[in-house]
Amino acid sequence: MGQKRFNSDRIYDVPPAGVVMGLSWTELGGAALYIETIEKDSGHGGPGIKVTGQLGDVMKESTDIAYSYTRAFLSRQDHKLFGTQFFSNASVHMHVPEGATPKDGPSAGVTMVTSLLSLASGQQILPNVAMTGELTLTGKVLPVGGIKEKVIAARRAGIQTVIVPYDNQKDVEELYDGIKEGMNFVFAQEYQDVYNAAFGPDAPYYKEVPKG
Amino acid sequence: MGQKRFNSDRIYDVPPAGVVMGLSWTELGGAALYIETIEKDSGHGGPGIKVTGQLGDVMKESTDIAYSYTRAFLSRQDHKLFGTQFFSNASVHMHVPEGATPKDGPSAGVTMVTSLLSLASGQQILPNVAMTGELTLTGKVLPVGGIKEKVIAARRAGIQTVIVPYDNQKDVEELYDGIKEGMNFVFAQEYQDVYNAAFGPDAPYYKEVPKG
Amino acid sequence: MGQKRFNSDRIYDVPPAGVVMGLSWTELGGAALYIETIEKDSGHGGPGIKVTGQLGDVMKESTDIAYSYTRAFLSRQDHKLFGTQFFSNASVHMHVPEGATPKDGPSAGVTMVTSLLSLASGQQILPNVAMTGELTLTGKVLPVGGIKEKVIAARRAGIQTVIVPYDNQKDVEELYDGIKEGMNFVFAQEYQDVYNAAFGPDAPYYKEVPKG
Repeated sequence: MGQKRFNSDRIYDVPPAGVVMGLSWTELGGAALYIETIEKDSGHGGPGIKVTGQLGDVMKESTDIAYSYTRAFLSRQDHKLFGTQFFSNASVHMHVPEGATPKDGPSAGVTMVTSLLSLASGQQILPNVAMTGELTLTGKVLPVGGIKEKVIAARRAGIQTVIVPYDNQKDVEELYDGIKEGMNFVFAQEYQDVYNAAFGPDAPYYKEVPKG
Repeated sequence: MGQKRFNSDRIYDVPPAGVVMGLSWTELGGAALYIETIEKDSGHGGPGIKVTGQLGDVMKESTDIAYSYTRAFLSRQDHKLFGTQFFSNASVHMHVPEGATPKDGPSAGVTMVTSLLSLASGQQILPNVAMTGELTLTGKVLPVGGIKEKVIAARRAGIQTVIVPYDNQKDVEELYDGIKEGMNFVFAQEYQDVYNAAFGPDAPYYKEVPKG
Repeated sequence: MGQKRFNSDRIYDVPPAGVVMGLSWTELGGAALYIETIEKDSGHGGPGIKVTGQLGDVMKESTDIAYSYTRAFLSRQDHKLFGTQFFSNASVHMHVPEGATPKDGPSAGVTMVTSLLSLASGQQILPNVAMTGELTLTGKVLPVGGIKEKVIAARRAGIQTVIVPYDNQKDVEELYDGIKEGMNFVFAQEYQDVYNAAFGPDAPYYKEVPKG
């Protein structure tokens, strides 16, 4: 139904807390893929998460993994920090626009956790950051496909910092310089690497990651 | 089976609170698509929403998004305003006539929220307003298809103000003047734009939207 | 989508408590197959287990068997030992990366129990141990397929001790010496044999197994 405008997949100039730009790809190319999470008003049932956006089975499991990981991540923080108890009470809703487009795959794992932590802490991520990466339940960041298409989509959307899995480093190195010019790449092994790059050193759960 | 009467898709002369005219389209043309929401009698189970009308998966998810968004929207209002606590207790039922016609797609998102807010506040929308637009969980209004067919259907139903997504502005500009004559178009970026146009400046949740 | 790097299926250098390397095989060869289990933060519903990783029906049943067996195993330990009451309260999540790869079969049974016991006791398994074996509900270890491919995968991942079912002993003997050189094989009849080899004689639930 008609042509998408250049850059039309950037919905947010400055995403509010709870909204994070991920990156997806299909055979037709890459695209921005936002993860939006809000807290529903309190007083409705117990804590929990609801998910919408025509997600396939793998992506639905990614939301489960992200939700479990986020709660475990927060339980390891100093409990006096704001937001660490958030999911003990909050009933949240995660949505992945656009609502009519079927989506699947595990590569939004790190984006989902970032969206949940952004909501819990009430803190927006740094401007012009996008990310991609599969997450394991303990926070390892696994490599994903479509790096080239995703970087092109990020560039088109005006992104300056792209967080990608460490094991995709070679894929980024192979991109020709014109695509990467002026962009900053962060290679994440652990989710904490993603957190640090997305929120910066002043963020409440920032922690140096020792590298071997 | 038989010929539709001209204008037969206008069910309501003046829709009561909880009822809002949306716009749908198929390959056969556009049509009015009402969203009706009522409060079921109290004392039956907890708060919640039931949906009927042969909705497909995408449209069912739209109702979830609309319900979550509406509750979050109300929680941000001054709590002394009438209706802001409505969904803490109300068990509501949303229906999309005609009940035998399968319907799908995300473009009734803004209409659903408007229906829910109309019910919560007990306030009808302004006369002869119809709307279309996909909603994200944070209230962004995303573009939809079939603008031409929807505007023709709105005109046929005697609608004077059509609320469409901001990113569909070009589609409206391309329509020939005969279709648009005497009609007023509102281009919405945020749901608040939709609310303002649907209920007017005297409505309880009316708020100026700063434009950049 | 591109070539896997040599040894890329080793996600963990030193797996934390709750993470155990199993071994899988397909027609294309063997691979490391991690079982990850974490405790979700407390205060969310009752105790229970959630499972993700695109598991087929047989493997899902394996998680049920592993969970039941683990709880029964712990109930037979001295109750003063750390971790024996863990599953009375804990809500846990078990995941099998990579999230997009469908997996099935019963041969991760012993790995799942080991992951659960590792989490409950807060104790990592010994370094460079991997395992495979179907488990019965009473703790018998049944033989599995693909021993050759699994041993090759274990070797490639730097594993030194491989725990295999007792009834697969012949399959190991038939492997040529070059594959097995420098590797240590443990043949398990009962789950306790697996536990002893995975955690060592200082582990809390270590127990000599009388052999007939």
